[in-house]
Amino acid sequence: MANIYVQRLAQIAQAVRAQRPLVHHITNYVTVNDCANIALAMGASPVMADDISEAAEMAGAAQALVLNIGTLNARTVEAMLAAGRRANEKGIPIILDPVGAGATAFRNRTAEKLLEQLKIAVVRGNLSEIKFLRGLGAETRGVDAADQDGVPERIELAKELARTFNCVAAITGATDVASDGEKVLRVDNGCAQLSGVTGTGCMSTTLVAGLCGAARPEDYLLCAAGGVALMGLAGELSLEREGGKGFGHFHMGIIDAIGRMDEKMLLERVKIDEA
Amino acid sequence: MANIYVQRLAQIAQAVRAQRPLVHHITNYVTVNDCANIALAMGASPVMADDISEAAEMAGAAQALVLNIGTLNARTVEAMLAAGRRANEKGIPIILDPVGAGATAFRNRTAEKLLEQLKIAVVRGNLSEIKFLRGLGAETRGVDAADQDGVPERIELAKELARTFNCVAAITGATDVASDGEKVLRVDNGCAQLSGVTGTGCMSTTLVAGLCGAARPEDYLLCAAGGVALMGLAGELSLEREGGKGFGHFHMGIIDAIGRMDEKMLLERVKIDEA
Amino acid sequence: MANIYVQRLAQIAQAVRAQRPLVHHITNYVTVNDCANIALAMGASPVMADDISEAAEMAGAAQALVLNIGTLNARTVEAMLAAGRRANEKGIPIILDPVGAGATAFRNRTAEKLLEQLKIAVVRGNLSEIKFLRGLGAETRGVDAADQDGVPERIELAKELARTFNCVAAITGATDVASDGEKVLRVDNGCAQLSGVTGTGCMSTTLVAGLCGAARPEDYLLCAAGGVALMGLAGELSLEREGGKGFGHFHMGIIDAIGRMDEKMLLERVKIDEA
Repeated sequence: MANIYVQRLAQIAQAVRAQRPLVHHITNYVTVNDCANIALAMGASPVMADDISEAAEMAGAAQALVLNIGTLNARTVEAMLAAGRRANEKGIPIILDPVGAGATAFRNRTAEKLLEQLKIAVVRGNLSEIKFLRGLGAETRGVDAADQDGVPERIELAKELARTFNCVAAITGATDVASDGEKVLRVDNGCAQLSGVTGTGCMSTTLVAGLCGAARPEDYLLCAAGGVALMGLAGELSLEREGGKGFGHFHMGIIDAIGRMDEKMLLERVKIDEA
Repeated sequence: MANIYVQRLAQIAQAVRAQRPLVHHITNYVTVNDCANIALAMGASPVMADDISEAAEMAGAAQALVLNIGTLNARTVEAMLAAGRRANEKGIPIILDPVGAGATAFRNRTAEKLLEQLKIAVVRGNLSEIKFLRGLGAETRGVDAADQDGVPERIELAKELARTFNCVAAITGATDVASDGEKVLRVDNGCAQLSGVTGTGCMSTTLVAGLCGAARPEDYLLCAAGGVALMGLAGELSLEREGGKGFGHFHMGIIDAIGRMDEKMLLERVKIDEA
Repeated sequence: MANIYVQRLAQIAQAVRAQRPLVHHITNYVTVNDCANIALAMGASPVMADDISEAAEMAGAAQALVLNIGTLNARTVEAMLAAGRRANEKGIPIILDPVGAGATAFRNRTAEKLLEQLKIAVVRGNLSEIKFLRGLGAETRGVDAADQDGVPERIELAKELARTFNCVAAITGATDVASDGEKVLRVDNGCAQLSGVTGTGCMSTTLVAGLCGAARPEDYLLCAAGGVALMGLAGELSLEREGGKGFGHFHMGIIDAIGRMDEKMLLERVKIDEA
């Protein structure tokens, strides 16, 4: 029997298919195609526009805004700030993916600037990225996850980051955790193969944004946990069907799975609970 | 028995495989990999170069030029104009994809500028984009199709746009129509699943460009209808083989199908006729 | 029985999985997703950062640097030079992919500038690109391979380029050759279908970089031959499993295959030998 979190998540996922929220992305060019396809597969409507000439206008028409710092440049940082300010004015949730925070001074400054100048609804990152944001001095090596710490440490870290920036913080890894500073949810979906495909983090962020785009602010914590749970479940489902073939097919199977998810499947297989 | 339009299209599609026209793209970074792969699958040779330092030179060496405004910025708009002017000088057909026209003032200005300053061979867009270009004040929501109007309205719209800009206009949707201002062709291939994968519009535009690159100007109307017909047929074929698996496999199946198409298949399954 | 080249390659490929070298890419936006996924599939760790604000810092943290000129602009050329200088200072191997060299003056100037101002470890290109770099006046048509010359000519060309720039030069085509100016290796893996998918050249370059990132300078010649051999073998393996389906599935099958490769498979199937 699914708990109230899973039940509510299934409702929001249905609302995404009914409402088709427009999710504006300013994101990296490495995984952008996957983000667009995962948004469509969940029933949302993706749009990408990264120039200062139109970023704010597009953000103002959207139901959620993704800011992903995977392949930054000076031009797109300005567009992120402009789009973010417009989103804040209109109460549109901003989902921040601090890809590679900790790896270079430019990424660090940009992540800090976005968190300081904008009201972020959800930050979703891996452990080393979130540690950097929390000022704990983690060393980020490229854009991969450094996954050594345990669940209690992750919970503490998510709570602290959430309090510091008055947002929801989600940390993905073997066990995912999300917190709004008080409450903490943990997610026990996923599989190791997800780290063998680029962009599964970015796609998780898009899933969080799609859910937020069809939900109310009091649901953002659940949306944060829910987006990473959907990605984890997609990995499990893809592994069952495609796993023996290799990472190319596993990648396609993730998008297949998000498109096939219905209420029944979520109620049976999503594992979200209070930590 | 295939009609003369389908017969002639099959000839042009064969000519693409024989001549391998070079199709230069200045296009968005969301769907660019799919555009390159669909061009290869149809037998054309894709190239992408978006900097003002080389865009015109590359366009001058090509047999067709795609201008796609999906992720614009100030730098690439200048490159589009320079490449377009060189293409016009050399009689190389320009295929314009006005992605998201109507959604922001910047896209609107850019689409107008391209249509006014360049001689465009074919414009291919969805209903709301083409409505915007025709000044009918459609509201474009993101980059998705708004698909409420009927076939007679689409035919009228395509004819009007074609006359205004002295080009071929193709409108894709449940039924696709293309017109040169006088003659109108309709296409009855396709399936609903095509809107569940990002870039099927962009890929259609590349297919139109590949066909134009191996054809004469008097065939551009047929190439416009033909490119969208090939994409529609690819959707049907992929659905037959991959549809039960999900959108990831359906996406790959589209590229599979374009690569498998031969004269016999086109003669049997393409549905193009006078409207 | 595998020869000493294949045995040593199998060791280096194992070292990649053990050490997970960070491979920094400044590359085109057409095939970048495939490069990231192929790096992960071979066990390396990809990162992409193309802005002058962070390119050198990221390169300094990497074990190999890919410079790929597929979609250049003025901004990224500066980032390539800055990243390359840092890599040279720290002894990190630079792998250059001169995509489309010969096609435009801008690409030519950039390729020359990179070869003159940086110490390149390996250049990997197709025949027309490498001919251009050697000043033989080949005409490059778009980014495709022009494949008319025979193996003896390729060997001579690779040796000359390697001597001129004091690097390893690898020329891919029906038969691949690599030389450090003295020694020459030839690779007899591959299949014709590889030219039907965009990015197989770029992915080869990433594979070369991953191997170099886990090897010593005296192994770079073998890594150059080895990277193109792995791509060729991936094509053969994908063709065996996916070939009948089409280019979409063949593309995914390439990534599947790289992920499945183990020591036994390499010892049995890689065909590298002295020319």
